[in-house]
Amino acid sequence: MANVTAQQAMEAANEAAFLTNNLWILVATVLVFIMHLGFATLESGFVQRKNTVNILFKNAMIIAIGLLTYCLIGFNLMYPGADFAGKFFGFGGFGLNPSEADLTSAYGDYTYWSDFIFQGMFAATAATIVSGAVAERIKLESFLIFATILVAISYPITGMWKWGGGWLDAMGFYDFAGSTLVHAMGGAAALAAAIVLGPRLGKYTPSGIKPIPGHNMPLAAVGVFLLWFGWFGFNGGSVLSADAANVSLVFVTTALAAAAGAVGAFIASYLLFKSHDLSMVLNGILGGLVGITAGADQMGPMSAVLIGLVAGVIIPFSVVFFDRIKVDDPVGATSVHLVCGIWGTLAVGIFGKMAGMGQFINQLIGTLAVCVFTFAFSFGLMYLLKVTIGIRVSEEEEIKGLDIAEHGASAYQNVENAAFAANIQ
Amino acid sequence: MANVTAQQAMEAANEAAFLTNNLWILVATVLVFIMHLGFATLESGFVQRKNTVNILFKNAMIIAIGLLTYCLIGFNLMYPGADFAGKFFGFGGFGLNPSEADLTSAYGDYTYWSDFIFQGMFAATAATIVSGAVAERIKLESFLIFATILVAISYPITGMWKWGGGWLDAMGFYDFAGSTLVHAMGGAAALAAAIVLGPRLGKYTPSGIKPIPGHNMPLAAVGVFLLWFGWFGFNGGSVLSADAANVSLVFVTTALAAAAGAVGAFIASYLLFKSHDLSMVLNGILGGLVGITAGADQMGPMSAVLIGLVAGVIIPFSVVFFDRIKVDDPVGATSVHLVCGIWGTLAVGIFGKMAGMGQFINQLIGTLAVCVFTFAFSFGLMYLLKVTIGIRVSEEEEIKGLDIAEHGASAYQNVENAAFAANIQ
Amino acid sequence: MANVTAQQAMEAANEAAFLTNNLWILVATVLVFIMHLGFATLESGFVQRKNTVNILFKNAMIIAIGLLTYCLIGFNLMYPGADFAGKFFGFGGFGLNPSEADLTSAYGDYTYWSDFIFQGMFAATAATIVSGAVAERIKLESFLIFATILVAISYPITGMWKWGGGWLDAMGFYDFAGSTLVHAMGGAAALAAAIVLGPRLGKYTPSGIKPIPGHNMPLAAVGVFLLWFGWFGFNGGSVLSADAANVSLVFVTTALAAAAGAVGAFIASYLLFKSHDLSMVLNGILGGLVGITAGADQMGPMSAVLIGLVAGVIIPFSVVFFDRIKVDDPVGATSVHLVCGIWGTLAVGIFGKMAGMGQFINQLIGTLAVCVFTFAFSFGLMYLLKVTIGIRVSEEEEIKGLDIAEHGASAYQNVENAAFAANIQ
Repeated sequence: MANVTAQQAMEAANEAAFLTNNLWILVATVLVFIMHLGFATLESGFVQRKNTVNILFKNAMIIAIGLLTYCLIGFNLMYPGADFAGKFFGFGGFGLNPSEADLTSAYGDYTYWSDFIFQGMFAATAATIVSGAVAERIKLESFLIFATILVAISYPITGMWKWGGGWLDAMGFYDFAGSTLVHAMGGAAALAAAIVLGPRLGKYTPSGIKPIPGHNMPLAAVGVFLLWFGWFGFNGGSVLSADAANVSLVFVTTALAAAAGAVGAFIASYLLFKSHDLSMVLNGILGGLVGITAGADQMGPMSAVLIGLVAGVIIPFSVVFFDRIKVDDPVGATSVHLVCGIWGTLAVGIFGKMAGMGQFINQLIGTLAVCVFTFAFSFGLMYLLKVTIGIRVSEEEEIKGLDIAEHGASAYQNVENAAFAANIQ
Repeated sequence: MANVTAQQAMEAANEAAFLTNNLWILVATVLVFIMHLGFATLESGFVQRKNTVNILFKNAMIIAIGLLTYCLIGFNLMYPGADFAGKFFGFGGFGLNPSEADLTSAYGDYTYWSDFIFQGMFAATAATIVSGAVAERIKLESFLIFATILVAISYPITGMWKWGGGWLDAMGFYDFAGSTLVHAMGGAAALAAAIVLGPRLGKYTPSGIKPIPGHNMPLAAVGVFLLWFGWFGFNGGSVLSADAANVSLVFVTTALAAAAGAVGAFIASYLLFKSHDLSMVLNGILGGLVGITAGADQMGPMSAVLIGLVAGVIIPFSVVFFDRIKVDDPVGATSVHLVCGIWGTLAVGIFGKMAGMGQFINQLIGTLAVCVFTFAFSFGLMYLLKVTIGIRVSEEEEIKGLDIAEHGASAYQNVENAAFAANIQ
Repeated sequence: MANVTAQQAMEAANEAAFLTNNLWILVATVLVFIMHLGFATLESGFVQRKNTVNILFKNAMIIAIGLLTYCLIGFNLMYPGADFAGKFFGFGGFGLNPSEADLTSAYGDYTYWSDFIFQGMFAATAATIVSGAVAERIKLESFLIFATILVAISYPITGMWKWGGGWLDAMGFYDFAGSTLVHAMGGAAALAAAIVLGPRLGKYTPSGIKPIPGHNMPLAAVGVFLLWFGWFGFNGGSVLSADAANVSLVFVTTALAAAAGAVGAFIASYLLFKSHDLSMVLNGILGGLVGITAGADQMGPMSAVLIGLVAGVIIPFSVVFFDRIKVDDPVGATSVHLVCGIWGTLAVGIFGKMAGMGQFINQLIGTLAVCVFTFAFSFGLMYLLKVTIGIRVSEEEEIKGLDIAEHGASAYQNVENAAFAANIQ
């Protein structure tokens, strides 16, 4: 090592920084992965006992199908690269084919594989958001087909518009980690699907709206904490390097917005319902997280608190609103992801570094474009499934529960036994 | 890059190390965050079914309020910095206002934001420890007010005494990651609150002490594993850099103390109760973790095993002791955090690098000072709440359960239905 | 810093890379740790309600005992180092005694402590795999003795054959992260133990095989997601550095194999049983993960998908097979870990960088040698326990459930109350 040059030392230092940057993307990937468990437990907790196996099954299949289709087609739709012809649609070919250089710092602050796996974890999220909104009455096969096509085609196309260098990016639209591209997009798909599908039996009756409470609140709470946990990777990883100032700022804004979302929902739901509603506070946390996602790197702590607070206040009003218009969303996914996603996107035009009327209008155009496209795509696809293979289980199956009807199984075998034993003694 | 100087290469190498050090603080932050889910599930599992929504609600609100108050006031009380007048109390002003340099390696091994968010995750812990001890009978609003003031005022003041450069630090007191400053502190607040509040109805009867077992052991076990998981960040992050030798040593001592705590509680509870008590083993793990926290960087594996083993043995005896003096603590928080916290702090004077009578006395003074201050603060605050807005739910509400009484909800909707169905067939 | 030399800058750059490499091993350690929660919840979910406390108790004790015995003896059996006499067995002495240099980059890409704690987290896995297969009828003490000896003696000996530089390593056998050394090994022990122990009462009756479904599917799903989460550390950490190209490739192959495992099990179980079986899909994910573990750094995404798909298809057939030969394994551990572990090991000879008949035969010899040794060791040990202290609870205890029989406790206190209340109204 006697003849080391400054040049060589600099290269070694750059390699060391590359190691760290790449490592952070991978750690963030792991954190985003566990959000899928967060969604699975949140949705399980919020549905009825008799549909628990079904929702777990769907969530396990979604992450599997999502990763495989993103590998096969989605990644190259979203980042078409050199084969990119046009600002609305491009395709880089099937499968993953990195060059040798793609696996070094020549690719950027991380490798091609890191890029794919981090983005792949995001992709499945959109379908997961839908699964909550259509829970307790959709046919399993129809849902899986819908989810596969949504993740394979719709998500990467609108994602490309901004993150793949498409027309929204060129226009100046800003969406740091996906308030619009992931959350409002998933929420718009959820809304379309819930409308085509119709409400659960007995939800909206002539005598009023019947609450159908979730069957397991600890499970729902576990889900929200895991989502918050994973969101540090979702937002923190979206810096796309381990840059100390940016990642640490993103951690602070993300955490404070979530905290303020809880407080906002706590206050608003107390004013609205005169009770301390756990499900509202849990969804308030998620609303705050969705809200800050578009601009987590764009503002200081005070703005993050405001964005989260507003998102939290929105939650109970939005939940009531969708119930009034008879859109039945068992877990509140539309309120959390669509409404707070739009709010967070617009908030970048109010609180972000380039805040102003011009930026606000860019934000508005961007979020509307993505939501309208996704809504139309999802509505059409769901309608097509409805008139072909059917999308809704029979009344009898819905009453019996999807666990028995679709899986021939029960989520908690022995409680029935306990109740049964109590009965026969 | 042809004219790179050695100086420039050295700066790049230092920046690369800074990236890694800062990244570790952020990853540790995420790990400490998930401890709040650990507390939420542990406490939920250990309370009765009818108080589950209530404890989840409190734990969700505590992390939210904790982060917000620490942002507003706590961080600058704990680290008053240049505005620091005196060794007992100082205040650096409201809110977070870093300079440009604070976001670079000029601030230290990590940024100002990383510093805040890592410390903020610690702060809410104190209040969470209390929530377990006062579970199943405290009024929600009173608890939230108590928790807010505890996190905003009491925790940062005693924290400053050591970590903010106050009088305990000057005296030579050592508390690596908070056996005293976090755990014994939270445990002392829990003890004071439990005393003022009084035991649950029917716990201590003329005919003896009635066990009130927790309603969901898997949930409690999930909590303990998550706490252990997060503790690698709690202790490992307290190195305040990614220093390889120190962080890896801390991982080993932390893991071995937890393991030994399980074994100690296994043996002691078998000798005491002639049964294999899961809740004791779970609390033994936590006792071992609390015990090693003060000196995790100060000793080798053998000492860590001894500290954990003693902590584990302490647990069942301490639980029995508090029941004998009729302090009702549904989750054993006082035994785990106060008793094992004091033990771990003193153990630094026995096993640490500066072990000896002088160090032992420093440790004793430090832990007593923090515990006495916190106990007095908490007792006074809780008493004040008792004589003003009241702290305890009515007998009727306690019997009915806080879920229905305070939230109008049930944690597991459908089990009642199953039991009901069994009954009416 | 004016007189910095290029040599000094290079050393600083190397130290920065060392920091990152070591940090990754520690983060991977944390991820592998949480796999123990994954096993605990998976196994809890798959057993009957009446044996839940028991399985949680065993899993909490296994990680504790595993870490302590690996510290005392296992680590130096597996990596005997300079004291290594022979290719089949060596021992480096009791306890952990690193030199000063062992805690610096002189030791390698990470410190001695990091090495120990990462390997220690692996070691306890073997015993955990067994605990699922022998659930619901084994005596607690007998199981703990069996698990302790297995982790202390059997696992490190066969581990040394490859990872400690023993005869399998010399022969050219390849096992990247332990399809054989951890999973098939644990599965072989599980098979031996299940055979000696015999099936649960009422499982195999003259009128056919009685399904005994698990009592809590959400818990089982949580377990599988946590295992997948932790597997990124299990496989990713086995690169033994933060090397960007290798770790990121391992992340991709690991994730895709798991996803394909879900799809394989989905299809195969539908063809076999004409239903959408959640437990099969969950075990399919695990099968895919076990399958890719031997060669996660050896192949591209397409091969990983194929390996996972085959592993997923294997699961339902293997589960049916073991039921046909009346080996009762309540959680399917033998199918997941033994069968898919062997498959993954052989797959390295088909898809790996050195694929070919020679490599395939090496793989076959290696996996058979480890499985046969472990099976014989476990069979003998379990038989010895059977004829001395006994290994099986009484019929009465088995019917009553191990929670009451061995722990005097119930996992879900209040459901009985609810059922009871329903009965007495």
